[in-house]
Amino acid sequence: MVELSLLNSRKNKLKFSIIVTLKKEVLDPQGKVVQNTLNNLGMGNLKDIRQGKYFEIEIDEIDQSLAEKKVTQMCEKLLVNLIIEDYKINKI
Amino acid sequence: MVELSLLNSRKNKLKFSIIVTLKKEVLDPQGKVVQNTLNNLGMGNLKDIRQGKYFEIEIDEIDQSLAEKKVTQMCEKLLVNLIIEDYKINKI
Repeated sequence: MVELSLLNSRKNKLKFSIIVTLKKEVLDPQGKVVQNTLNNLGMGNLKDIRQGKYFEIEIDEIDQSLAEKKVTQMCEKLLVNLIIEDYKINKI
Repeated sequence: MVELSLLNSRKNKLKFSIIVTLKKEVLDPQGKVVQNTLNNLGMGNLKDIRQGKYFEIEIDEIDQSLAEKKVTQMCEKLLVNLIIEDYKINKI
């Protein structure tokens, strides 16, 4: 029984990655600076570069769909500015 | 012939995503702040959260392996601090 509960507690952790990017129509000055710097370093055949944010979240939940819902909630409440940003959640 | 070259110029663009994360043994104060804030918002079953950077690069190159080499070079020269960060390159 003890072993079983240990096994369960290990399984409880679900890990998700969140990628937050600026919407296409939003200017990305930070990306532009990186692009210019790379051009100055001699890497000229760069068409476009856009910067975003990345999060890795470990959540204490057995049910994957429930966990996904919670992660979505986290995104919409804190991590993502829905007016100018998009986000993508992946199970890892 | 014109159409063919148009087709080629469209194919020239290769797109990569780069995920930059702090190495496991490096503290992530920014992630800790996000975690605390989420806890205060009532989302308590959060085990761990780590923040990273994300880049989307469009490069003007036909040969994929050559393009990948160039993206690696960009990472190591500018985008990633190899002492404290890891990176992952994906074709998208």
